[in-house]
Amino acid sequence: MTTDDYDKILVTFRILIADLVQQYNGGHPGGAMGMAAIGVALWKHVLRISPSNPNFFNRDRFVLSNGHTCLFQYAFHHLVGYKHMTLDQLKSYHSAELDSYCPGHPENEHPGIEVTTGALGQGVANSVGLAIAAKNLQATYNRPEYPIVSNHTFCIVGDACLQEGISLEAISLAGHLCLDNLTIIYDNNQITCDGSVDLTNTENINEKFRACNWNVIEIMDGSEDVSAIVTALEASRKSDKPTLVNVQTKIGYGSNIEGTAAAHGAAFGQDEVDRLHSVNGFPVDKKIVVPQYMYDFFKKEENEEKQWNELLTKYQAAHPELAKEFLNRVNGKLPSNWESLVPTQFPSTPTASRKSSGLCVQNLAENIKSLFFGTADLSPSVNLSWKSKVDFQNPAIDTACGTNGDYSGRYLHYGIREHSMAGIANGIAAYNPGTFIPVTSSFFMFYLYAAPAVRYGALSKLKVIHVATHDSVGLGEDGPTHQPIALATFYRALPQINYIRPADSEETAGAWIAALKADTPTIISLSRHNLEQQITTNRQMVAKGAYLLQEDEDAQITIIGVGAELTFAVGASKVLRDKGIKSRVVSFPSQRLFEQQSLNYKRSVLKRGKVPCVVIEAYAPNGWERYATAGFNMTTFGKSLPGSIVYDYFGFNSAKIADRIERYIKEYEDPDIKFEFQDLLAV
Amino acid sequence: MTTDDYDKILVTFRILIADLVQQYNGGHPGGAMGMAAIGVALWKHVLRISPSNPNFFNRDRFVLSNGHTCLFQYAFHHLVGYKHMTLDQLKSYHSAELDSYCPGHPENEHPGIEVTTGALGQGVANSVGLAIAAKNLQATYNRPEYPIVSNHTFCIVGDACLQEGISLEAISLAGHLCLDNLTIIYDNNQITCDGSVDLTNTENINEKFRACNWNVIEIMDGSEDVSAIVTALEASRKSDKPTLVNVQTKIGYGSNIEGTAAAHGAAFGQDEVDRLHSVNGFPVDKKIVVPQYMYDFFKKEENEEKQWNELLTKYQAAHPELAKEFLNRVNGKLPSNWESLVPTQFPSTPTASRKSSGLCVQNLAENIKSLFFGTADLSPSVNLSWKSKVDFQNPAIDTACGTNGDYSGRYLHYGIREHSMAGIANGIAAYNPGTFIPVTSSFFMFYLYAAPAVRYGALSKLKVIHVATHDSVGLGEDGPTHQPIALATFYRALPQINYIRPADSEETAGAWIAALKADTPTIISLSRHNLEQQITTNRQMVAKGAYLLQEDEDAQITIIGVGAELTFAVGASKVLRDKGIKSRVVSFPSQRLFEQQSLNYKRSVLKRGKVPCVVIEAYAPNGWERYATAGFNMTTFGKSLPGSIVYDYFGFNSAKIADRIERYIKEYEDPDIKFEFQDLLAV
Repeated sequence: MTTDDYDKILVTFRILIADLVQQYNGGHPGGAMGMAAIGVALWKHVLRISPSNPNFFNRDRFVLSNGHTCLFQYAFHHLVGYKHMTLDQLKSYHSAELDSYCPGHPENEHPGIEVTTGALGQGVANSVGLAIAAKNLQATYNRPEYPIVSNHTFCIVGDACLQEGISLEAISLAGHLCLDNLTIIYDNNQITCDGSVDLTNTENINEKFRACNWNVIEIMDGSEDVSAIVTALEASRKSDKPTLVNVQTKIGYGSNIEGTAAAHGAAFGQDEVDRLHSVNGFPVDKKIVVPQYMYDFFKKEENEEKQWNELLTKYQAAHPELAKEFLNRVNGKLPSNWESLVPTQFPSTPTASRKSSGLCVQNLAENIKSLFFGTADLSPSVNLSWKSKVDFQNPAIDTACGTNGDYSGRYLHYGIREHSMAGIANGIAAYNPGTFIPVTSSFFMFYLYAAPAVRYGALSKLKVIHVATHDSVGLGEDGPTHQPIALATFYRALPQINYIRPADSEETAGAWIAALKADTPTIISLSRHNLEQQITTNRQMVAKGAYLLQEDEDAQITIIGVGAELTFAVGASKVLRDKGIKSRVVSFPSQRLFEQQSLNYKRSVLKRGKVPCVVIEAYAPNGWERYATAGFNMTTFGKSLPGSIVYDYFGFNSAKIADRIERYIKEYEDPDIKFEFQDLLAV
Repeated sequence: MTTDDYDKILVTFRILIADLVQQYNGGHPGGAMGMAAIGVALWKHVLRISPSNPNFFNRDRFVLSNGHTCLFQYAFHHLVGYKHMTLDQLKSYHSAELDSYCPGHPENEHPGIEVTTGALGQGVANSVGLAIAAKNLQATYNRPEYPIVSNHTFCIVGDACLQEGISLEAISLAGHLCLDNLTIIYDNNQITCDGSVDLTNTENINEKFRACNWNVIEIMDGSEDVSAIVTALEASRKSDKPTLVNVQTKIGYGSNIEGTAAAHGAAFGQDEVDRLHSVNGFPVDKKIVVPQYMYDFFKKEENEEKQWNELLTKYQAAHPELAKEFLNRVNGKLPSNWESLVPTQFPSTPTASRKSSGLCVQNLAENIKSLFFGTADLSPSVNLSWKSKVDFQNPAIDTACGTNGDYSGRYLHYGIREHSMAGIANGIAAYNPGTFIPVTSSFFMFYLYAAPAVRYGALSKLKVIHVATHDSVGLGEDGPTHQPIALATFYRALPQINYIRPADSEETAGAWIAALKADTPTIISLSRHNLEQQITTNRQMVAKGAYLLQEDEDAQITIIGVGAELTFAVGASKVLRDKGIKSRVVSFPSQRLFEQQSLNYKRSVLKRGKVPCVVIEAYAPNGWERYATAGFNMTTFGKSLPGSIVYDYFGFNSAKIADRIERYIKEYEDPDIKFEFQDLLAV
């Protein structure tokens, strides 16, 4: 190719972008135009993909972390022949079209979009996850002469992505893990919404990456020099470290506001778009036109998938057992007996649910190869280790503590990087849905650090299991900084994620089963402290979200107990029985699962309007008003005291609760109180 | 001092720590013991503080970002003579003592604790904020020969803090801003909970800091070499950049598990504590004893405050006007007429509440010098700029976009660093409560990135105002990644923070007034899109949280409208009136403020049990069940469509809502439905 050939392609591409954004007078033109040469390098020369099958297993993964420039990706998908991305579809960007494949940020429900991006930095963490997934499969399934997994991950980032904490965490970990199958392409245009980047950031980004064990390649004329970009990207494929390709570009390249923040997030105006057409020799009266030479330029034979299928056939012959396991992974199959791997016997003595969870994990981890565990530095607390555990680790590292591993390991020490942990787990899950079930872990409170990424997992329906321990004020001395009050409310309100608080070992088994059956993320919320084993808890009923645990005939009150606090419901019911007051006790591990039940079932459990109903949970009450008429909840932050003392301090005490319920049953006769949710703890 | 003198002090300190943790068999001994020499350097030699007055204005600020080692700080507070920190108090660490000054993590409600820390990394961002506050006061109020503000900020971090994204963001910004009044002391013991740091992190931390424009000093024998630490810290005070003092230490120094993760978070056991006593020549039968030589060693004359008061007197004489303003700032006084600075006239045409907020800000920003604004790179969207705005900026930087500033500026471009923005704002607010009222800004959805720091602000009762725009699906094409669904639920459930959604310009004025009157943080939640100006909205009533906006006689239904969606409540009420159905409309900007009203007032607004009540808000319903019997809410993620279209897509349409309400009024007769919250939108 000569420079002139590229010029024509680049100009045509940029004008197409300007036209498309002008059409509905909205969108992000500048980045897409500035990155045109990067896009040509990728989609013409570098990416090993199969446009006729966006899900070809061994495809290179591409992530657009600066997701607001999505029109860039949509346009290249059109040009290289993704079937769904017709010109009409491309034109639907920023339209009122309900079935558009071109939303304002990339969404993974659409073909060819590996991960949903938009909030900056998420894509960086996702890319690290995609690279980890490939690395782990390679180490597990590749054999000499059979590189059955060989894809590379390319991720474009903008200036903004590299300021976000989630990216900085993920970059540090990727360097440590020496992920040589990962390339970050930095669209270095030095412009963000507020103006030039030097308003906020004057660090030496190349040195920063090098300090994190990355290879760095610089491209000076990145808005034009396709060949240099191609050379750099191909070099990065062969690097022995992850690579940053730092590409200097100009936002809004070619426009009269090139290189300014004004080119970022708005249409250029009809006059400027007309001018762009004129000066480049394009008819002013023809907008959103893709000349045939563009299709001709990007057309290529698709050999990647064919070759891979041939290799797979040979691999099956040479390594039949391994190939079988590999294909089960590819097809997302769990062992047929997986549910029986969850233990049915537990200690009869009070047991912390984090410990119960650890007991559940043993056989699951050993036998379900798709489970890929990890922790944000809380291994001793979260109990996710198992007998034959091997760390996912750069084998060249000989750690000071003597815990070494290799790339086939399925336990990842994420470091104290909760946000990127969840973002990386999303990437692992997204590699080929079903091939991996990532499990993350930390204290529940730190899932607030991770929350933006956990939310993206829900939005993207990625099956990730988050094991969150230390889930109530009962954690004790660590105090209010560590005691979650409002966080569960958030996860219960968030669509497409299941927050489960099991009350004992049996319910913890049920929570693991529900999580493994789910097709969206799950948070299993566990106690640090020992929980009494209840007699009538039932793993199958956990799937119902809530169920009747015990019932006196002609009960006067329903008492909902949640997770670690179920014990107070059972305890209060006993005290009430001694007082001659009859009650029903409901265990309520999951609001999301309960909402999925029939109206009849829900009414049979709650009996709203028939008897008053109190909920006991050491969290904010918000949301429980739907199910209960009154609550024993937290309306303040917690306190640093030993676990049992802190419970008592806030009134979580079966006898005190029973006394208050006794009075409340009478108060409930008042027609006002009958219709108002009552906060029964007065702290 | 000779090395031998220090040895005795250090050994005594470490044994005191081991004893205190052993007492209740819980806590974090290892870090505190490993950092003993750092502590001696700080409290004996470096920190300019006034133990008799922990709040002495010009004191050096000290932040313990690795807050789990808090016993370290408590013990030094005892040794240097903080009056509240008696030996009995020190002994209350991990006890059941309700009035302990020694919670499991430092809490800023206690004397001498600048900021609450615990979740890792928060303290780093807080320190950057404390340094910014000092820098800004210096540039504003210091005059030749009158360095009335001259304090330094020292922050200790552990290995974990330096992995967290919030720290990495804050470090990058601090380097850019060239905060030479900030020193980070890195307790580099290379141990975290999981084992050695090289399990997860092998980067070159010194190079990383240097790439971010930091000065770096290394100390090799950091568990012993007090003099070297003192020299480094005093050098950092004179550096022309922020400084990292990288101190190599050994966790659990002197114990038989020195240098291992086991020394981190548990008592050593009685045997090992006894052994520590024996081998160091301390009586085994005497635990938690502070010999007199320790008090003698740390005793010093307090000259700092006296000298500062003398300087202040002279400053008042030399610069009376400036000194008056300075003392008003010190005393946290707002201008007496501040409420009249909020405009009373607004455009009569539909106006985005982010724009209304911008109009409110003009006079406030100009006249209230304690307001310190900032944005996570969304200046063009959040409208917080004002006429005489000057950026808080390193004056040596000449930005490419030509927007320069200096350290007296009150507008900070935080960069795309939402989490550290909120953490830094907490630090600015904590400098001397009332001296600064930091205002942060971003899209509401990105306050999920910032959430852990916003939560710390609430927990610590720091008066910070968060201006959160683009607060509903009405933001349009940016789509589900940017449309908040569950986030408001979290902030409404979180104690000690006020989330306000004003419905029009008048209520936006009310929101700003409420935020400025509050003594805890506020989130002002604003629309991107234009909102109709309602006739009967009332700024004073915003303080009530909710109020009756309009009422038909003998109304059959109460309709709650919230923020941007109030318009649908007013619209539906009009349609209903045309159908002959009478209604009441309630505007409900803040659940937190409403909860603070009298029971009578609340009942007069809601009339629960008298008439059904529907709430209209394009967020998850969770929590509204307390106030309404049914809701038009979101139970899915949003969608990328133009703003008005996306509202309609999800059923937010006055006519459709009115139709559904008409049916609901009849359904409400059903005794089951009467007692159950109904989700009326079926998407």
